[in-house]
Amino acid sequence: MYTVDLNSDLGESLGAYTIGADSNIIPTISSANIACGFHAGDALVMDKTVLLCKNNGVAIGAHPGFPDILGFGRRNMQLSPKEVKAYVKYQIGALQAFTTSHQVKLQHVKPHGALYNMAATDINLALAIVEAIKEVNSDLILLGLANSYMISEGNKANLKTSSEVFADRAYNNDGTLVSRSNPNALIHNTEECILRVIRMVKESKVTTITGEDIHINAQSICVHGDTPKAEEFIKEIKKALTKENIIIQPLSKQL
Amino acid sequence: MYTVDLNSDLGESLGAYTIGADSNIIPTISSANIACGFHAGDALVMDKTVLLCKNNGVAIGAHPGFPDILGFGRRNMQLSPKEVKAYVKYQIGALQAFTTSHQVKLQHVKPHGALYNMAATDINLALAIVEAIKEVNSDLILLGLANSYMISEGNKANLKTSSEVFADRAYNNDGTLVSRSNPNALIHNTEECILRVIRMVKESKVTTITGEDIHINAQSICVHGDTPKAEEFIKEIKKALTKENIIIQPLSKQL
Amino acid sequence: MYTVDLNSDLGESLGAYTIGADSNIIPTISSANIACGFHAGDALVMDKTVLLCKNNGVAIGAHPGFPDILGFGRRNMQLSPKEVKAYVKYQIGALQAFTTSHQVKLQHVKPHGALYNMAATDINLALAIVEAIKEVNSDLILLGLANSYMISEGNKANLKTSSEVFADRAYNNDGTLVSRSNPNALIHNTEECILRVIRMVKESKVTTITGEDIHINAQSICVHGDTPKAEEFIKEIKKALTKENIIIQPLSKQL
Amino acid sequence: MYTVDLNSDLGESLGAYTIGADSNIIPTISSANIACGFHAGDALVMDKTVLLCKNNGVAIGAHPGFPDILGFGRRNMQLSPKEVKAYVKYQIGALQAFTTSHQVKLQHVKPHGALYNMAATDINLALAIVEAIKEVNSDLILLGLANSYMISEGNKANLKTSSEVFADRAYNNDGTLVSRSNPNALIHNTEECILRVIRMVKESKVTTITGEDIHINAQSICVHGDTPKAEEFIKEIKKALTKENIIIQPLSKQL
Repeated sequence: MYTVDLNSDLGESLGAYTIGADSNIIPTISSANIACGFHAGDALVMDKTVLLCKNNGVAIGAHPGFPDILGFGRRNMQLSPKEVKAYVKYQIGALQAFTTSHQVKLQHVKPHGALYNMAATDINLALAIVEAIKEVNSDLILLGLANSYMISEGNKANLKTSSEVFADRAYNNDGTLVSRSNPNALIHNTEECILRVIRMVKESKVTTITGEDIHINAQSICVHGDTPKAEEFIKEIKKALTKENIIIQPLSKQL
Repeated sequence: MYTVDLNSDLGESLGAYTIGADSNIIPTISSANIACGFHAGDALVMDKTVLLCKNNGVAIGAHPGFPDILGFGRRNMQLSPKEVKAYVKYQIGALQAFTTSHQVKLQHVKPHGALYNMAATDINLALAIVEAIKEVNSDLILLGLANSYMISEGNKANLKTSSEVFADRAYNNDGTLVSRSNPNALIHNTEECILRVIRMVKESKVTTITGEDIHINAQSICVHGDTPKAEEFIKEIKKALTKENIIIQPLSKQL
Repeated sequence: MYTVDLNSDLGESLGAYTIGADSNIIPTISSANIACGFHAGDALVMDKTVLLCKNNGVAIGAHPGFPDILGFGRRNMQLSPKEVKAYVKYQIGALQAFTTSHQVKLQHVKPHGALYNMAATDINLALAIVEAIKEVNSDLILLGLANSYMISEGNKANLKTSSEVFADRAYNNDGTLVSRSNPNALIHNTEECILRVIRMVKESKVTTITGEDIHINAQSICVHGDTPKAEEFIKEIKKALTKENIIIQPLSKQL
Repeated sequence: MYTVDLNSDLGESLGAYTIGADSNIIPTISSANIACGFHAGDALVMDKTVLLCKNNGVAIGAHPGFPDILGFGRRNMQLSPKEVKAYVKYQIGALQAFTTSHQVKLQHVKPHGALYNMAATDINLALAIVEAIKEVNSDLILLGLANSYMISEGNKANLKTSSEVFADRAYNNDGTLVSRSNPNALIHNTEECILRVIRMVKESKVTTITGEDIHINAQSICVHGDTPKAEEFIKEIKKALTKENIIIQPLSKQL
């Protein structure tokens, strides 16, 4: 029997600004990554999104990012590991105030955007994130890119980890994602995306951009939530997973 | 036997900006109010200040304020109680990440600046703060202005409270502070300040600006920490308290 | 012959966040108020919005607000007149960088949200805004609420002013807007809104909430741009103005 | 006859936070680089600093930086040239509001911190800055690192440029600064610093870290202003320059 988690980035609205169709997406996923006010989100949005997740039985994760509202946390910033560690702690703590208030558990932490990408290949940033999580709440799961430093360093430190895969992204032979600057970085055919995901879940294998088969651990699938097309894709992938007898459940149930 | 707490606002530095002589002040007080990044402070400063308090055996409180770095949280903002409640929760949670990391307890919450002043006389803001604290961590003590709505509403809600007094401020007959716009708002004579504080602690009485004696509960004395004169004042007041056999101890030991 | 300006608040998007249908609204109005990064907008959005206005022959104004992204500049902040003056200067200057770059003139300044409302009834804030404009660029027009301190103080200081009216708002006998907390503050009937506006333009009169007729100077009509209904309303009002031979033209052409 | 400019980074205070001894430094230099609110400074500080420069006859420059108060603009951020161009325009415009108000001219633009360092070696960022300046005010001088892309691209675009040198920094053979991670990056001996500066001004030569002599254009010397030692160094260097008959004057007088 196979299981997998479906996660999505949510709670990214800010004051008068709305992004994402959170109330449509939340009922369709098993884990939510909630922005914590550094790159997106604010205290009121965090409160509301935690409640929405609770009411839909969706597991909650913190989604800490760089302090960069103007860039939505997608621009690389050269921070020291010490800075990253402190920023991640701060954001986890802030979200925990709302999970505690609503009497639900915080399940995981998934770094956002440029922080996620940088920590995938920079061992010191990966370690900073691992240490931050362990020191604030060692029960939390680190949700990171499959085959990245986030997963390897988390495991070495006895932190629970969960490997995330992308249905619509091409992979390099070393397991990293093909850069978006490569014209073949994205897989546009929905059917192909779904077949790849199912193979990743069932066989722990994916075919890379050069045609080689590599090992990949697919514990959670990232689905986007900010376009009508995204909502359609979630429906398709859920149908396919169900047909393949793959059970969708939150990270914490798989460990 | 009498006891009182000495508290001070700390951890107000920000990035490259330094304010306050925290490492000099912390060893001289019993409770620290640490800024949480909205009006002052940042994640690195919070981490460092929590550790400094731990190493000096000083009890730690969150010092949430308005989201207003430019105004240092001293400018009134007309926020809804719902906004205040969410902002206070966020800031308490953020600081708890660092107290948990350093394996110390968070003792209390003291609102900062304009939020403190507004919540003293606005029952809905006072209630928003009380609810925020109860929902995030009902063991925390609300440190607020003696005779204010923060104290009365906290008590009604069965939240632990602690009444704060000011050595160098004149009081109105209703127990509120005389506005700084009044030329007699401040008491400049150190000896008089100290006599007033001792009377507040021992007799629960203070003489108001019109000469009347009113009841006041003095569980904690606020001392400033940002001038050399302030450091001198702390020495004087501690000497006087000791001479009067008044024991200085954190809020949590008095309840 | 009668003339009037149609103005709208634009350029309020921020980074990844989009608000308003700027490209639909701009071709339909004569003057645009562009946010300057304090309560909304950012440098890229300002650049793009200035260009869009230029390409559509729409006159450009700065729309300075309180430094409050979280509250979209709609929350009252108690700033000193000195602070308001400096903040308004800063924002005008920032926008002028983009009008200069695109070789168009800045036409006017209209304060935003809570700053607009507060300066309407607080003579010191009105004066601070008037002085800021005069010192940065004395050719600019101050677009403010009809009958408010912004208009009277601007006129006294020999600053060009333009009086703004609202089609869908009820008026008090002293010419101020009925507070939104009053259930009758908004006029929901489109036809009535249009009749009121036409009377304001042609007769300089409006019937107040108590039924009295008062004098009102209607040089510019504020139209909203963030809902499909708003776009429909603009069409209706333009049709009615044209039928009444009222020419729509920017503020600068009326003075 | 030789001339050189002495420049310093100023106006870096922010709200309640004070950095630098501006009122001591300003009377001793010929050009001031004033922070514009992105990495440091605020509207009130800009206003005050412009006035202080005016009263001391010191030429004024904009000192635009990355939007990063927490990192004081010293942390690399991967922004697109389009973002950098817009951010630089915004900041120049904001400062011009205050120079216009005080009826003084803006003389130059010197990028700050990480933006300065990145634009020195990244031709696209250098071009973005050059274009921003030309489009906002083509009379402004770009003050940049000697031998860097800022100077070469500025010159190609017919923008006035001024080459900045550092008294206390070692140089590579290609004219770039030796990275601070190199233990020999800094020259600690004041006498040696001064001799190097005088040679740079008179002979346009500096000895690199490997002992080679390279050409360097020394139109402006950067002096720091945030330590008592810095103030002492300014005295020493001015005395030496005077003794060598090198006249200290603002950039604009040299072109």
